[in-house]
Amino acid sequence: MNIELINTGSELLFGRVLNTHQQWLCRQLTDLGYLVSRQVCVADDGPSIQTAVREALSRADFIIVTGGLGPTSDDLTRDLIAQLLGRKLILDIEILRQLEAYFTQRKRTMLESMKVQALVPEGARVLPNPNGSAPGLAMQSGEKWLVLLPGPPRELRPMFTASVIPILQRAFPLQSKFICRTLKTTGLGESAVEERIAGPLRPLLDAGLEIGYCARVGEVDVRLVAKGENADKLAADGERIIRSLLPSRIFGLNDDTLELAVVRLLTESGQTVALAESCTGGYIAHRLTNVPGVSRVFAGGCVTYSNAAKISQLGVHPEMLAAHGAVSPEVAREMAAGARRVFDTDFALAVTGIAGPDGGTDDKPVGTVYIALASATETTAQRHFFPFDRETFKFITSQTALDALRLAVTRL
Amino acid sequence: MNIELINTGSELLFGRVLNTHQQWLCRQLTDLGYLVSRQVCVADDGPSIQTAVREALSRADFIIVTGGLGPTSDDLTRDLIAQLLGRKLILDIEILRQLEAYFTQRKRTMLESMKVQALVPEGARVLPNPNGSAPGLAMQSGEKWLVLLPGPPRELRPMFTASVIPILQRAFPLQSKFICRTLKTTGLGESAVEERIAGPLRPLLDAGLEIGYCARVGEVDVRLVAKGENADKLAADGERIIRSLLPSRIFGLNDDTLELAVVRLLTESGQTVALAESCTGGYIAHRLTNVPGVSRVFAGGCVTYSNAAKISQLGVHPEMLAAHGAVSPEVAREMAAGARRVFDTDFALAVTGIAGPDGGTDDKPVGTVYIALASATETTAQRHFFPFDRETFKFITSQTALDALRLAVTRL
Repeated sequence: MNIELINTGSELLFGRVLNTHQQWLCRQLTDLGYLVSRQVCVADDGPSIQTAVREALSRADFIIVTGGLGPTSDDLTRDLIAQLLGRKLILDIEILRQLEAYFTQRKRTMLESMKVQALVPEGARVLPNPNGSAPGLAMQSGEKWLVLLPGPPRELRPMFTASVIPILQRAFPLQSKFICRTLKTTGLGESAVEERIAGPLRPLLDAGLEIGYCARVGEVDVRLVAKGENADKLAADGERIIRSLLPSRIFGLNDDTLELAVVRLLTESGQTVALAESCTGGYIAHRLTNVPGVSRVFAGGCVTYSNAAKISQLGVHPEMLAAHGAVSPEVAREMAAGARRVFDTDFALAVTGIAGPDGGTDDKPVGTVYIALASATETTAQRHFFPFDRETFKFITSQTALDALRLAVTRL
Repeated sequence: MNIELINTGSELLFGRVLNTHQQWLCRQLTDLGYLVSRQVCVADDGPSIQTAVREALSRADFIIVTGGLGPTSDDLTRDLIAQLLGRKLILDIEILRQLEAYFTQRKRTMLESMKVQALVPEGARVLPNPNGSAPGLAMQSGEKWLVLLPGPPRELRPMFTASVIPILQRAFPLQSKFICRTLKTTGLGESAVEERIAGPLRPLLDAGLEIGYCARVGEVDVRLVAKGENADKLAADGERIIRSLLPSRIFGLNDDTLELAVVRLLTESGQTVALAESCTGGYIAHRLTNVPGVSRVFAGGCVTYSNAAKISQLGVHPEMLAAHGAVSPEVAREMAAGARRVFDTDFALAVTGIAGPDGGTDDKPVGTVYIALASATETTAQRHFFPFDRETFKFITSQTALDALRLAVTRL
């Protein structure tokens, strides 16, 4: 069974918009046990859309087309596909009424041009759109299904969940039970993760467990997929083995972020944290404060770019700065201890380093960073070397710092 | 002349990764006057990649393939395409030496498997990769070009700019002069921008100037495209008219960010800034510190989530907090004035608000925020209402704050 995805929209090929539909739809489908075999993006003109749909119909069983259902002159998908399949467009009175109600409720006038959204290809099923004006459409062509969804994500996503998944699952029921679970790890590279777990997992793989790796900067996902009667047991056994082999490296499941894991651990243990950031420039604070409810565990932080700020805000001793330089384990420790004292928290993280592109020396090249962690019992600093572009440097430094905090809270 | 883009990688079709290559490459090409007619994403297996490349070769003149050039077992692109074109793979001694140097420099061992990255299809041109181990490849098949780029963005992007654009421009020179210039605006919605400039631009549009709008949260891009002999004059006239109609709303050109514009203005005028952030949680500091060289104008900032931190770090008066609450113009002004004093800068920005999802009241619902700006002459605060999800709230608040600073520095 093949699924193909067609994204229409010239703005995608102009590079003005990021194609978030692809990731979202592919992820929903994969998590349900359906694989997308191909995604294509074409301009919203007649020949491009018709060619793409014709090709997809020749290969795939279930085709999802996004975009081009609105009322403006470049919204051609409905017409072109009806034409391609040889279906008449029929005005659907029920949709027309809903459209009128939609505009009345929003105190807006419904222009004549809006009525095209009530046109339905003969025999198509209408997919309600509670978040916008253009409904979706689902139609069969032989044994194959063609689903048309509106472009705006806040319309497409609920429609996909409410209307498309049931059609897909009824038309193409999975042959067997399906489980997909992602273990999120940090602190090890992809090869190192694979090296540790691939051997011991071998018997489970032979029994049908599938394993996939996805490496990003500072994170490796391990994805377990199991099918059939034994799916639950295979996935559970796989997770148990991986957890035993990577005891401290797994911070969460599926969509968890490291900052969410850290905030959750702090909240559960009733501990608090403060930050002293130099080279990450507020990025660690930004990541933590993306988590709702963080104010219970995060008191605040200082972004101390200048030496003067390190002295006045965190109580770093000028003689320390003079003796060891701002990028040193001594100053990192004083920053962490200072932040912990000033904000009166259980923990404090401090980072000081050289993000570049300038400012490196032979002894401390661009990419050098010290990460310090202060707790009630000790204040330690580690040297790292992340010779990357500025944004990657900030990300991986923040990742390493948050992970040090996670491990410290876990050990409590 | 047709350009097609093929993104390989099962993780894209599993929905684990967002396809940022598409947007970035399409944008670069569009800005140079080249249009991408189709983008396709396929799994990294033999049949999928070969079918996609074969189809693209039947339609397009210039084909860009991303991903699958690394050393692991699922990196098949190089092999598959050499096979498809009937080219032998030859070990390139120069690349091998560079690979060895790359690993030596990073104090890592080069595994035997890494050597596949030094294999080059007969007759292919090698595209150097200063940011990673796998070089890119460019090869001709008749009049057509096929370019293979590594998947990681920080390797792909510089390689595209340095090596691919020159090949493209030499092989397919534009038939006429092409100018694409994007004016970056903030502070007005898309319709408001269009309403102000569309009428006065009409004569230039009639003369062949093309204009496009792209709206994002907190920003609207106005894109001017002109072709042919009069291109320079048309684009220059268009820009002049738009600048006169939106005198204070344009902060930059093309890929400029608002934070870059602010750092540039501060640097030019020799002024400095400090920050006091509550609800943005370090995000403004993060944005500013993404700009290389920011340390000359940015002294530091405080992320004061708790009231205690606002008092101890910024000298906010406890009686102000008690009388007006943390989210008030009075406290915003004290935060800004405090940051300016503490960090000894020319300007200071402060934000205090309710990001949500909890914490709102009837009087100050979720989305309420005060932005204060302190300078040598005055300290003012503005109330705003940004009832959006947490990340959008942080972005638009930071955008509004940075724009207030930009305007203040511009007025100097």
